[in-house]
Amino acid sequence: MDTKTQPNISALRIDGQRLWNSLMELARIGATDKGGVCRLALTELDKQGRDLVTRWAREAGMNVTVDKIGNAFMRRSGRNNALPPVMTGSHIDTQPTGGKFDGNYGVLAGLEVVRTLNERGIETEAPIEVAFWTNEEGSRFVPVMMGSGVFAKAFTLEHAYAATDAEGKSVKDELARIGYIGPEEPGDHPIGSYFETHIEQGPVLEDHDKTIGVVTGVLGIRWYDCTVTGMEAHAGPTPMALRKDALQVASRLMQEVVACAHRHPPHGRGTVGMVQVHPNSRNVIPGRVKFSIDLRNASDALCEAMDADIRGVAARLSAETGLPIVIEPVSAYPAQPFDAGCVDAVARAAQALGYSAMPAVSGAGHDAVYMARLAPAGMIFIPCKDGISHNEIEDAKPEHIEAGCNVLLHAMLERAGVPGA
Amino acid sequence: MDTKTQPNISALRIDGQRLWNSLMELARIGATDKGGVCRLALTELDKQGRDLVTRWAREAGMNVTVDKIGNAFMRRSGRNNALPPVMTGSHIDTQPTGGKFDGNYGVLAGLEVVRTLNERGIETEAPIEVAFWTNEEGSRFVPVMMGSGVFAKAFTLEHAYAATDAEGKSVKDELARIGYIGPEEPGDHPIGSYFETHIEQGPVLEDHDKTIGVVTGVLGIRWYDCTVTGMEAHAGPTPMALRKDALQVASRLMQEVVACAHRHPPHGRGTVGMVQVHPNSRNVIPGRVKFSIDLRNASDALCEAMDADIRGVAARLSAETGLPIVIEPVSAYPAQPFDAGCVDAVARAAQALGYSAMPAVSGAGHDAVYMARLAPAGMIFIPCKDGISHNEIEDAKPEHIEAGCNVLLHAMLERAGVPGA
Repeated sequence: MDTKTQPNISALRIDGQRLWNSLMELARIGATDKGGVCRLALTELDKQGRDLVTRWAREAGMNVTVDKIGNAFMRRSGRNNALPPVMTGSHIDTQPTGGKFDGNYGVLAGLEVVRTLNERGIETEAPIEVAFWTNEEGSRFVPVMMGSGVFAKAFTLEHAYAATDAEGKSVKDELARIGYIGPEEPGDHPIGSYFETHIEQGPVLEDHDKTIGVVTGVLGIRWYDCTVTGMEAHAGPTPMALRKDALQVASRLMQEVVACAHRHPPHGRGTVGMVQVHPNSRNVIPGRVKFSIDLRNASDALCEAMDADIRGVAARLSAETGLPIVIEPVSAYPAQPFDAGCVDAVARAAQALGYSAMPAVSGAGHDAVYMARLAPAGMIFIPCKDGISHNEIEDAKPEHIEAGCNVLLHAMLERAGVPGA
Repeated sequence: MDTKTQPNISALRIDGQRLWNSLMELARIGATDKGGVCRLALTELDKQGRDLVTRWAREAGMNVTVDKIGNAFMRRSGRNNALPPVMTGSHIDTQPTGGKFDGNYGVLAGLEVVRTLNERGIETEAPIEVAFWTNEEGSRFVPVMMGSGVFAKAFTLEHAYAATDAEGKSVKDELARIGYIGPEEPGDHPIGSYFETHIEQGPVLEDHDKTIGVVTGVLGIRWYDCTVTGMEAHAGPTPMALRKDALQVASRLMQEVVACAHRHPPHGRGTVGMVQVHPNSRNVIPGRVKFSIDLRNASDALCEAMDADIRGVAARLSAETGLPIVIEPVSAYPAQPFDAGCVDAVARAAQALGYSAMPAVSGAGHDAVYMARLAPAGMIFIPCKDGISHNEIEDAKPEHIEAGCNVLLHAMLERAGVPGA
């Protein structure tokens, strides 16, 4: 029996200033004039970011391993290293006009947890790991969430390796060039449970004035292309009654995409983001309009119901107007509820720490979605200014950065176990 | 006193086959594989077309003069050459994917009237002229209706001369190159009255199964750019209630553009032809949508009422949604009613000839719009297949081509006067 004295765990707090300083230091690599970061996956800048974070990990006494898709695992041993690690992580690649916090926060929050445990000499039962996953953003190489996707066997290593950027450079060549093809088989790495801390990338927490979002799951997504076909004609000589105006029908259906989301509350979302009008000339009645439909909801059943809803509306609108409407699926991502135990651990930590908190859903994908297929998983959201992300003006408050990391610390300690605590 | 016997004018008919053959021969210059014509203004092909038509005119005994903007006037003397001529005309330049009939029909119908009068030895009191106007289409050089516009002093010769095509070639240089800068001052040419025969470029006559459209005027046009500003945000993490979706507001206003036309019958027309969505990404809520508005009606007062209507709707929609909506005027063309005497001459001719006819308005601009500022003017429409024009599949029936020309013949004879008839 270990007789070493463990400190009072409930009073344990991370060092918010140290975490902030690390975030700012990492953000210098690829810093943009507007205060953001451009550090695209597998570039020289990504290598510099990876080198810095793994150096910090080694300085914190962690052991670093890398797998064949470049995912890095930074491990702090536990008392019982036969147990699968309690893992946290995210990504350090950014959008071309990215901010300082998206992804980077989740990785450095994990590092700060380890630094805090080291400083206070706290040993956990299970080992703790901090991961960063390759090419989460998907800006340079498709698919997005590439490293975690290969790890979870959502697609193959070969598929990911073959992806090329706009200049024709492949993932495999670029990974090799920056020295991040490791020996591990992706996925051949046990995970006891997984947490990911992330800025919300939306406005809900700010709107409700809450510090912590206890993420219960990630919305399922259905993407479609919709095409309405009319007849192009000269805007002058064609009376209203004889028109087959594709845009008029399309614009009614665009309204219905939003109405469909409202018909499936509270998490239904419907967006038309992209529109192409043909021939797109000021004095020609549009003969064809193609637009995107993005439907999201909290369960696959609700996504399916929204699919049936919008198809029914489109069929009725087509019958009423006589204009053909075709809705083609583009891609679909299933809804991913998080593990009740992990969700509760996050909620308990927020409550114990005295932070205001609310249940949240993630409308966007994160590496945690793939991890949730492999192990109990959960996420912690903190507010971001005006809900803006994927933008150089992305911003988060230091007190929220600190709070989210404290929640991560206590949720991980609960799952990892602290002998004697 | 002239004792020459004039034939029975009311029995006079043009030669439909001869007119059709001339149309087909002219259409060979710039013929496209799809059966259309590409004969852009002031190109080598335009020169060939001009040379052919003026050669035909000289062969018909006509005197040809050209003005400084390249408008050509082909004159058949009357008994009293002190009288201003009864003129007809149109244009022989085409759209890049133009058809055989747009413009060309109006010019060759005039030539066929002269050929018929020659064949039958009929003398008119006033002289008869057939004109073709430079660059009506505006495809290569802006503004459209350039030759007739300079003639009517809607803009200056210098303004027209300075216009350049996509390669930077100027109207003046290209006119000189093809040898069509004449000595006449544009506008320094009397017109007694003016008729223009044209395919309808719309579906109304075909829809009503009528042969002749008695054109009472040309609709006024108001062009605007409308911009709706929202806030771009990630389609996933942003709940419906917290969105400022510019496309949702814009698509409601697009519906209102059409509703506004229906609120101003029978000639009100409203079209949204061009849409730009920013950033136009599948999973981003649009932050800004810019779209064109084209409003038309039969009088300036009705155009003004439609302007007030759509601005009022936009103001209410902006107040309701909180999203700024800006409507900026782009250009405006006044409504142009035709001369009652010319309109009646066309209606009488159609009735006397036994053709089915109906009143019509022109929704598109024609050279006749500018002529109507200078002299009594009228237009004769014939159906075109499916209302399609500005397209290589533009088509018209030989019997309609013939009928429209017969109406032109009799309307011109009424205005010019036939001694002894």
